[in-house]
Amino acid sequence: LEDEWPTLSPSSSAAKLNSKKRPMAECLEIYRSEGACNSLSDEEVVMLVEQSHIPLHRLEAVLGDPLRGVRLRRKVVGSRFQTELAIKQLPYLNYDYSKVLNACCENVIGYVGVPVGYAGPLVVDGKPYMIPMATTEGALVASTNRGAKAIGSRGVTSVVEDVGMTRAPAIKLPNVVRAHECRQWIDNKDNYALIKEAFDSTSRFARLQEIHIGVDGATLYLRFRATTGDAMGMNMVSKGAENALKLLKNYFPDMEVISLSGNYCSDKKAAAINWVKGRGKRVVCETTISHDSLRTIFKTDAKTLARCNKIKNLSGSALAGSIGGNNAHAANMVTAIYIATGQDPAQNVTSSNCSTNMEVCGENGEDLYVTCTMPSLEVGTVGGGTILTGQGACLDILGVKGAGARPAENSARLASLICATVLAGELSLMAALVNSDLVKSHMRHNRSTVNVQASCNLQNDGIT
Amino acid sequence: LEDEWPTLSPSSSAAKLNSKKRPMAECLEIYRSEGACNSLSDEEVVMLVEQSHIPLHRLEAVLGDPLRGVRLRRKVVGSRFQTELAIKQLPYLNYDYSKVLNACCENVIGYVGVPVGYAGPLVVDGKPYMIPMATTEGALVASTNRGAKAIGSRGVTSVVEDVGMTRAPAIKLPNVVRAHECRQWIDNKDNYALIKEAFDSTSRFARLQEIHIGVDGATLYLRFRATTGDAMGMNMVSKGAENALKLLKNYFPDMEVISLSGNYCSDKKAAAINWVKGRGKRVVCETTISHDSLRTIFKTDAKTLARCNKIKNLSGSALAGSIGGNNAHAANMVTAIYIATGQDPAQNVTSSNCSTNMEVCGENGEDLYVTCTMPSLEVGTVGGGTILTGQGACLDILGVKGAGARPAENSARLASLICATVLAGELSLMAALVNSDLVKSHMRHNRSTVNVQASCNLQNDGIT
Ligand SMILES: NC(=O)c1ccc[n+]([C@@H]2O[C@H](COP(=O)([O-])OP(=O)(O)OC[C@H]3O[C@@H](n4cnc5c(N)ncnc54)[C@H](OP(=O)(O)O)[C@@H]3O)[C@@H](O)[C@H]2O)c1
Ligand SMILES: NC(=O)c1ccc[n+]([C@@H]2O[C@H](COP(=O)([O-])OP(=O)(O)OC[C@H]3O[C@@H](n4cnc5c(N)ncnc54)[C@H](OP(=O)(O)O)[C@@H]3O)[C@@H](O)[C@H]2O)c1
Repeated sequence: LEDEWPTLSPSSSAAKLNSKKRPMAECLEIYRSEGACNSLSDEEVVMLVEQSHIPLHRLEAVLGDPLRGVRLRRKVVGSRFQTELAIKQLPYLNYDYSKVLNACCENVIGYVGVPVGYAGPLVVDGKPYMIPMATTEGALVASTNRGAKAIGSRGVTSVVEDVGMTRAPAIKLPNVVRAHECRQWIDNKDNYALIKEAFDSTSRFARLQEIHIGVDGATLYLRFRATTGDAMGMNMVSKGAENALKLLKNYFPDMEVISLSGNYCSDKKAAAINWVKGRGKRVVCETTISHDSLRTIFKTDAKTLARCNKIKNLSGSALAGSIGGNNAHAANMVTAIYIATGQDPAQNVTSSNCSTNMEVCGENGEDLYVTCTMPSLEVGTVGGGTILTGQGACLDILGVKGAGARPAENSARLASLICATVLAGELSLMAALVNSDLVKSHMRHNRSTVNVQASCNLQNDGIT
Repeated sequence: LEDEWPTLSPSSSAAKLNSKKRPMAECLEIYRSEGACNSLSDEEVVMLVEQSHIPLHRLEAVLGDPLRGVRLRRKVVGSRFQTELAIKQLPYLNYDYSKVLNACCENVIGYVGVPVGYAGPLVVDGKPYMIPMATTEGALVASTNRGAKAIGSRGVTSVVEDVGMTRAPAIKLPNVVRAHECRQWIDNKDNYALIKEAFDSTSRFARLQEIHIGVDGATLYLRFRATTGDAMGMNMVSKGAENALKLLKNYFPDMEVISLSGNYCSDKKAAAINWVKGRGKRVVCETTISHDSLRTIFKTDAKTLARCNKIKNLSGSALAGSIGGNNAHAANMVTAIYIATGQDPAQNVTSSNCSTNMEVCGENGEDLYVTCTMPSLEVGTVGGGTILTGQGACLDILGVKGAGARPAENSARLASLICATVLAGELSLMAALVNSDLVKSHMRHNRSTVNVQASCNLQNDGIT
C-alpha cells in the first residue's frame, strides 16, 4: 500500500526520468508540443497539474497510462483529505484501471476491497452452484450456506420471466384534451409500431414490449418497457426512449419533454409500480424442506416457521406500511451478489422486492413449502461493472458471464440464482429467529399454551 | 492473480514443507496431536479437507493464518465452480484477512475491488471535503463533482438529528385484552424506566429513546428506538431489545416472543414507518445556487429546474406509488459512499429515502433554493465494515473514522456529508435532464409557448 516512487518506477529509464524536475516553462513546452506526458517525470506532471495546466480528472488520458494517472492523482489530492495519512491506506496497486476508464468511475484514487465468500453448493433447477457473496456483514454467508444445506439435493426450482427494463419520460401537452389525444394516438396499434421501430432501431438487443402511460393532468409519463438481451439495460432503454420521443414529437409538435426520466420508471426509488408491474426479471422460486432437515439443521419445525413468516413477513410488514418488503432480509443476499458480480448495487432498492411465503405441507403436515417471489430483479451479465476483473470472475463462478446463447439466457439464469439464494437466506434467518433463546425458553416453559395458540391460529389461517 | 504455490511460499522452509505429501494417516496424526497445521504442507492440508477431517469453513482457524486459509480454500473449491478458470481471476492477495475473520465474512475466497473516485471539494458547513465514492456506474462521480462545483464556496448547510436505530420484536399475548394491558404497562413511566434500564445495561453506548408499539390483534410490535453512539447500532439494538423482553416476560409470563424482528423495525425493506418516524440519522441540507452558476455550470435556469423537480420528483414519484422516493437518484450517492466507507450497503433500501426540493428564490427570482431531506440514514463509523483497511481509509479521507469526541459526533458528520453529496448529485442530474438534447431542442423551437406554460405553472404552485 506504500505510495513511494522508487518501487513504482517499473524500469531504470523511468527511474532516471523521475529524478528530473525541469523548470515549469520547459515542462509546459514539452507537454504542449508532445500533447502527452511520456517524457515528463512524475514531479513535473504534478507541477503541471498543480498549476492548472492539466485538469486533474484528465490525468489518465493525458498520461496514456491509467495506473500512472491514478498514482499521480493520489499524489496531488492526498494532501487535501481530512486526514493526511488516509491516502496511504487506500489500496490502488494490482488493479486493471484500463477497464475502469471511461466506463465505471472517474477521478479514481484506488479501490476498496469487499471480501467475497461463497455459499453452497446450492442446487437450483437440478444443478449445484457455489454462490459468491461480497459482504462485510458477519454471519450472512454462513447463514445463507446453512440454508443451502437444508435445501440439499432436492434443490430450488425457479421460473423466470424477462419483464424488461423501463424508462418513463415525462412529457407535457398544452391541456388535458391534447394529452388524451396523445395517449390515444400511442395506444393505436399502427402508431405503436412506428414508435417501436424508432425505439428498437437504437440497439441490436433492446426490444420494446409496452408503453404504460401514467396521467397527471396534462402531463403524461410514458413508461417504456423493453427486453435488453443480457444487459441490465438502463442505458439502452434510455437511448431507445429518447429516440421514440423524437418520433412522437413529429406528430405532437406541441408536446414538451420535461425530463427523460419522470420517476414513473422507477429507478432506485421504492415504488409500488415495480412491485405491481415488475421490472427487469420476475423470478419465482420454490422448495420443500423435510421435517427431518427442519429438525436437524434448523432445530425447529414447519408450523413454527410458517407462523413466524405470517406474523413477521406479512402482518409486520403490512403494519410498517411496506411496499415489496414481505420478506426477512432479501436485500442482504441481493446486495452481496450484486457487489460480487458487478451489478448496480444502488438498484437493490427495487431489486430486493420480495414476497417470502411459508406453508406447512406433506403427508403428515410436517414439511415446509417455501416460495420467494421477486418481481423486479434488475440484472445484467454484460455492460456496467460486469467488465471488471474480480466481478467478471464471480460471474464466471456462476457460469453466466457475458452474452448467453439466447438473449437474456445468462441474465435470466443470474436472476434465478439470486432468487434461489434469497430463499436459502430467508429460510436460515427465519429459523434463527424462531430458534432464539427467548423463543426457545418460551417453548420450554410454556409449551402447552403455545401449542393451543399455535394450532388454533394455523386453523384460522387455513395454513394447515 | 496467479494462484501458483512457489511464488506464494514466503520462505524457503515453507517451500521445503510444501514439497511434502505424506500419507493420510500420518498427516491426520500430526493434525490431531498438534491441533494445528503448521507443520503440514499445503497439499497435505488440502488432502485433510477433501477427506472431511478439516471443515472447509474452519481453515483460517485451524491454520492460524488467514491468508493461507483463503488460499487453500481457493485450492479446494476452485474446481467446483461453473468455470474452471474463474478462481484465477478473483483477486485475493494483498488483503488483510485478519480483519475479516469472525467479523465481516465467512468462507472467504478473495475480494472484489470496487473503484473509488472522489467528488469535491464539496463545502459542507463551512469546511471543504473530498467525498470518496465507490461505484461502477460511469459518470456518477463526474456528475456529483459538477454539483459540488456549482455549490462552490457558499457550501451546503446541514442539520442532523440522531433519531436512533430501531428493532421491533413481535410478541403475542393470549388475547386482545391482555395485549392492551401489556401496551398500557409499557407506556407507564415507571415501567418504561425498568425496561430502559434493562435495555441500556447491555451496552456502554446504546440508550433507549422510545418504544413505539404497533398493534395487530393480540400481537404487539415493540419498536425499540435507541441512540447507539458512533455505531450504526443494529447488533446493539437487537441485544438491548432481547434483554428488555426478558424483563417484560417477568411481568407478562403469558406473552410469547414470536420473533426478535417483527419487520416493524423496518430493516432493509421499503416501509412508510422509517420515512415517517425516521431511523438512524435524520439530515436536512440546503443551499442556494446563483443564476450565474446555473447558467455557466449547468446551462439552465432556476425556473426550469424547479418545474422539473415538481413534475419528476413530486408528481412522478406520487404516481408511481413511491415511499420516500421524492428524489432523482439519492440511492446512487448513498450506495457509493456506503461501499467506500464500509457501511452496510443493503441498508441503502431505507437510507436512500430522500425528498429533494427546489424553489426559485433571490431578488430577481433567478436563483435556486435546494434542500434534501433524508430521515433515515443508517450509518456508523465504528463496527461492521468500517474496520477494513480501504474502508477505514475512506472514513479517514472524511475525517470521521472511529469514535468521535462526543457520542455520534463522527456518525452524525458522516450522515451530513452523505446528505450534502446527495444534494450535489441531485442538482447535477436534474440539470442534465432538463438540459438534454430533447428538452433543449424544445426550448429552441417552442420557446414562447414554454414560457407562458412555465410561468403560469409556477404561479399556480406558489413556487415563485
Ligand atoms: N442511464 C441511466 O439512467 C442509468 C440508470 C441506472 C443505472 N445505469 C447504469 O447503466 C449501466 C447499465 O446499462 P446497460 O445495461 O444499458 O449497459 P451498457 O453497457 O450501457 O449497454 C450494453 C451494451 O452492450 C451491448 N451488447 C452486446 N451484447 C449484448 C447482449 N448479448 N445483450 C445486451 N447487450 C449487448 C449493447 O449493444 P447495443 O449497442 O446494440 O444495444 C450495448 O451497447 C450500468 O453501468 C448502470 O450502473 C444507468
Ligand atoms: N443484527 C442485525 O439484525 C443486523 C441487521 C442489519 C445489519 N447488521 C450488521 O450489524 C453490524 C453493525 O451493528 P453495530 O453497529 O451494533 O456494530 P457492532 O460492531 O456489532 O457493535 C458496536 C461495538 O462497538 C462498541 N463501541 C466502541 N466504541 C463505540 C462508540 N463510540 N459508539 C458506539 N459503539 C462503540 C460497542 O460497545 P458496547 O458493547 O458497549 O455496545 C459495540 O461492542 C454491521 O455489520 C451490519 O451489517 C446486523
